[in-house]
Amino acid sequence: MKAVLFDLDGTLIDSVYQHVQAWSEAFLHHGFCVPGFEIHRRVGMNAPLLIDALDRTFQLDIGAERKESIERAHARAFASLRDKVMLFDGADRISQTLERLGVGMAIVTSAAERDAQTFFSRLHLADSVICITRDSDPTSKPSASQIDRALHALRVSPREATLVGDSTWDMLASRLAGSLGVGVASGGYSREELAASGALRVYRDVSEFLARLEEIGITR
Amino acid sequence: MKAVLFDLDGTLIDSVYQHVQAWSEAFLHHGFCVPGFEIHRRVGMNAPLLIDALDRTFQLDIGAERKESIERAHARAFASLRDKVMLFDGADRISQTLERLGVGMAIVTSAAERDAQTFFSRLHLADSVICITRDSDPTSKPSASQIDRALHALRVSPREATLVGDSTWDMLASRLAGSLGVGVASGGYSREELAASGALRVYRDVSEFLARLEEIGITR
Repeated sequence: MKAVLFDLDGTLIDSVYQHVQAWSEAFLHHGFCVPGFEIHRRVGMNAPLLIDALDRTFQLDIGAERKESIERAHARAFASLRDKVMLFDGADRISQTLERLGVGMAIVTSAAERDAQTFFSRLHLADSVICITRDSDPTSKPSASQIDRALHALRVSPREATLVGDSTWDMLASRLAGSLGVGVASGGYSREELAASGALRVYRDVSEFLARLEEIGITR
Repeated sequence: MKAVLFDLDGTLIDSVYQHVQAWSEAFLHHGFCVPGFEIHRRVGMNAPLLIDALDRTFQLDIGAERKESIERAHARAFASLRDKVMLFDGADRISQTLERLGVGMAIVTSAAERDAQTFFSRLHLADSVICITRDSDPTSKPSASQIDRALHALRVSPREATLVGDSTWDMLASRLAGSLGVGVASGGYSREELAASGALRVYRDVSEFLARLEEIGITR
């Protein structure tokens, strides 16, 4: 295993519940009442897809213009909550640990560059870490496009890489890319949901994953 | 089946994500950083037990005085979010539907009377509905005490009643009471987690449950 790719929200940073709140407010502001659990299970999709998915599920008939307006409202609401978002235990040690082991690292996220940048600094990433955001590739998960791009930049083949993520969309994207997927329960999906969507293993959080790198074939 | 008991938060009202936020703020205000998903999976426990559970899991060493202070901080934070909490689709039709079928109804909740009362009005409950809150019985779920009390008031035996809830603590309490437990996925627990904790069936939400009352033996 030559590289590990990480999702950001719910995997490295404890932001899923803030995203649920921000989406919930954004929909409500436009007159749509969408249950929290239905939003929760779609966080990790890219924003337009999340809106489309809820539009179709609840037959909201939102329309293109209001979709953009909802997306902007979410971005504003999340920005006001961003300072409350914590890193998960161990997240700021990952880059150093993998570098010492000679393993490449990337972050692939549906988040906007603007939101992600704050956390990239807090995560103490080595210069070699590849960061793919919505701005560098808008076709984010569950598409494999961002993973393809990260693998290309890291110069590794799909089967030499593992994606670590908290959502079923991460697991789907890793399968589409031809890489292994490892789940972390820190985004509020259950272990069973992650396993059923193709996770090779499911850990509590990245801290537990770091302590068990041997289980995906990374040795000291 | 002569009576159906309902949990409130996450079952009749879409409040779990607000509770996660309120607990998260309450802990953080006291200097404790507790991940959102760990709070989420304990919402539905009564407040002192939730604090004790997180105290033990994360070895926070909170102490009795600060526990009370955290509980009060959560109550204040939740109060400020209460107006944003929506009823789940169909929740305000349950009382009328069950009354027409001659089936008793109760609500058993770890919530404080003050928080619950607002929602009891919005739910259009018939006068016959028994409401047990933390104020009428502080030993709330996962204990069976509130269920025992509701069954007594409804004059039905445990096996003549079903508890509908969104959390594994509801399912545990229903087993301890000797009643059936039916899960709803609307609190963000997965179907698998609810089934594994003893749910006879798991529905998407109370609306789906209402449409399938025959499946627990209630006929028109």
